[in-house]
Amino acid sequence: MEQPIRVGLMGLGTVGSSVVQLLEANQEDLFHRSGKQIVVEKVLVKHPEKDRSIQVPSECLTDQSDEILKNERIDLVIEVMGGIEPARSYILEALKHGKHVITANKDLMALHGEEILSVATEKGCDVFYEASVAGGIPVLRALTEGLSSDRVTKIVGIVNGTTNYILSEMLNKEAPFEKALAQAQELGYAEADPTADVEGLDAARKVAILATLGFRTRVSLNEVFIRGIGSVTLEDVRFAMQLGYILKLVGIAQRDEDKVEASVQPVLLPEAHPLASVNGVFNAVYIYGEAVGETMFYGPGAGGMPTATAVVADLVTAIHNIGMGVSGQKVVRPYQETVLKSSKEVFSKHFLRLRVADHAGVMARLTGIFAEVGVSLEKVLQVPGGQDQEAEIVLVTHRTSQYQLEEVCHRMEELPVVHRLMSHYRVEGGED
Amino acid sequence: MEQPIRVGLMGLGTVGSSVVQLLEANQEDLFHRSGKQIVVEKVLVKHPEKDRSIQVPSECLTDQSDEILKNERIDLVIEVMGGIEPARSYILEALKHGKHVITANKDLMALHGEEILSVATEKGCDVFYEASVAGGIPVLRALTEGLSSDRVTKIVGIVNGTTNYILSEMLNKEAPFEKALAQAQELGYAEADPTADVEGLDAARKVAILATLGFRTRVSLNEVFIRGIGSVTLEDVRFAMQLGYILKLVGIAQRDEDKVEASVQPVLLPEAHPLASVNGVFNAVYIYGEAVGETMFYGPGAGGMPTATAVVADLVTAIHNIGMGVSGQKVVRPYQETVLKSSKEVFSKHFLRLRVADHAGVMARLTGIFAEVGVSLEKVLQVPGGQDQEAEIVLVTHRTSQYQLEEVCHRMEELPVVHRLMSHYRVEGGED
Repeated sequence: MEQPIRVGLMGLGTVGSSVVQLLEANQEDLFHRSGKQIVVEKVLVKHPEKDRSIQVPSECLTDQSDEILKNERIDLVIEVMGGIEPARSYILEALKHGKHVITANKDLMALHGEEILSVATEKGCDVFYEASVAGGIPVLRALTEGLSSDRVTKIVGIVNGTTNYILSEMLNKEAPFEKALAQAQELGYAEADPTADVEGLDAARKVAILATLGFRTRVSLNEVFIRGIGSVTLEDVRFAMQLGYILKLVGIAQRDEDKVEASVQPVLLPEAHPLASVNGVFNAVYIYGEAVGETMFYGPGAGGMPTATAVVADLVTAIHNIGMGVSGQKVVRPYQETVLKSSKEVFSKHFLRLRVADHAGVMARLTGIFAEVGVSLEKVLQVPGGQDQEAEIVLVTHRTSQYQLEEVCHRMEELPVVHRLMSHYRVEGGED
Repeated sequence: MEQPIRVGLMGLGTVGSSVVQLLEANQEDLFHRSGKQIVVEKVLVKHPEKDRSIQVPSECLTDQSDEILKNERIDLVIEVMGGIEPARSYILEALKHGKHVITANKDLMALHGEEILSVATEKGCDVFYEASVAGGIPVLRALTEGLSSDRVTKIVGIVNGTTNYILSEMLNKEAPFEKALAQAQELGYAEADPTADVEGLDAARKVAILATLGFRTRVSLNEVFIRGIGSVTLEDVRFAMQLGYILKLVGIAQRDEDKVEASVQPVLLPEAHPLASVNGVFNAVYIYGEAVGETMFYGPGAGGMPTATAVVADLVTAIHNIGMGVSGQKVVRPYQETVLKSSKEVFSKHFLRLRVADHAGVMARLTGIFAEVGVSLEKVLQVPGGQDQEAEIVLVTHRTSQYQLEEVCHRMEELPVVHRLMSHYRVEGGED
């Protein structure tokens, strides 16, 4: 019988355990589809003696990385430990020993993707990382293969399930931010320290990966503008709704001509936008290509089993490549120079919410500022404010530059009749 | 300089012209991504002398298929003529001459896919047909690669833009069927003879392809139950809405254990279902996998440019394979035996709408029939009927077999108090 493919698995947490279970459950189908038997040869864990919910023969477990990295029987390493080190060193070491690598590690690929892919190319090895963005949604394949013929100009992604769950609860159940967060933690959707999710860092890593693959130009993590949802209030969500918008935390990557912008921020989406109805922990990535137009890819963004499907799908591809003797020949690397837009080149509509003194002439002062800065208004809504003699004003601008918006905000804050600039958000999609 | 890839294009209609334009517009990117220059060597047309909106050098145009099929300079044939013959003979001939084939032809792949793929395997050639289902959405790749690790158990697709446009107009603008159809024809969304779209045949071809790839078991066109939207009324759409459902024409492929069902029919989707908000000519395919759970792929299902992106993405893959010397090695063929479910094994909820005599005891008679057949009810709505002494009753059952439903309908029609069984639809998704 033909040689099986021997896999070294690094990490046996939620995703690692699910990989083992999926390989077991779909053994027969995977044999048909990959043409090879798949054997998990060794599993790297911190404590080999620990009791585990899944069945792994004890002789497979090890706490010594070299038993995988220097093991000549092992063809391929699956890294599902997470974090930068020692994952980075292990992967580089595996590649140096001619082992193919599959990883679910977004932190690592966002920060050290170029280094890892360059070593892989040099060594003729495959590195796949579908699982690193949007869990079970095969969106990296969509960008690199399904849409390889097109010029992608915009990617908008709900790529963090924790924050999407929180915002969905705020919208649908009128739960305030803190309550929705506590609920997410209780259900295991948010970690004890939710900072990386809530502040947008997790989403930013995915945006860097999506933009790099979508535009074929390297977008690194420090080029992604990041704003989280920590300051989003129930009132923002409600006012947005009143004007026909849904508030979502999204990653945006956009290019016009050859200049690129990338950000993570809470934005308002028109109710009819394909992303607006993506609720709870689900993820979705909206991709606009010049020829194809609007597309969207929707599914579970996290969780052991969904993420394992992406890992094992990559494994099937890697096994095909091994069988055909073409590993490392289709590594997708950037070929375009990255030029970032300045704030004068980033355009969108904006939503602003203000508390102002409620007397004659105030609206004239406000709209005067917009006129001076050259920003025109699409919608204006005025309601009584929180206190006596106070009004609340919500405005939506026409398309304007980030620079002009900042100028407007700055002038607003200096105006005595403006008690407080409560919030401002970018408005995505819809006609301009 | 390296040899370019020489392409023979068969057909220069909407899709063919867009392929030429896309190759031209994205020339530089395509060179980076495929590693080769792409040259359209010959284009088969009926009338080479005709004036055309796109620029193709006149020496490239030919009305002789052999100038492509027997042309030794040509590596690859793109077939975008449509129809069964002569497309089938041309493709088989191209394969016999060792040329790779890319086609957008759903009719052909649904009926003769097995024959074509088997000749391709024999000749070591690639055949790709991403464009044949759901235009610009890379859903065949999702099934064969992105979800290759999982056991897909259900596929529900809005895969016909014409009928989705008609149903969207009926829902959102209260347009009756005939008016919505006329509107679709005016906008070029429906053909002069809309039968294949309206009666569900077009969608059925796509379901056969999706089911075959998703389940890796051959589902042929004559195994797909087909019911179109010709008899859907505005009242059906409204009553469905009142109960929280959106009426859509979908293709359904489902398997339980190893038995398969495939159909095209108008169904009611709960408003929160990912497919429910897919409006107008857009397409979307919902895929459920045992490990990944719910995913959905959304985008333009037709149109020259979107379809061309799928054709050219296939071209890029084919060129990679040529470059690596691995053409024809990854042809996806069924490996499981097809066993169709009987009507006693096809389960779902159902919606029924009846006009009945409006007097005491009628409801008891009706619900008595459901009880006798063993069907339990989830929702009942009664409103005054169209005429005096008449009531309209809308019922939604719990999950029941197709067989039981047919029995209920049969008995209803024999009951004197039932004036008319107005309509019945399958209800998809939601809790059972």
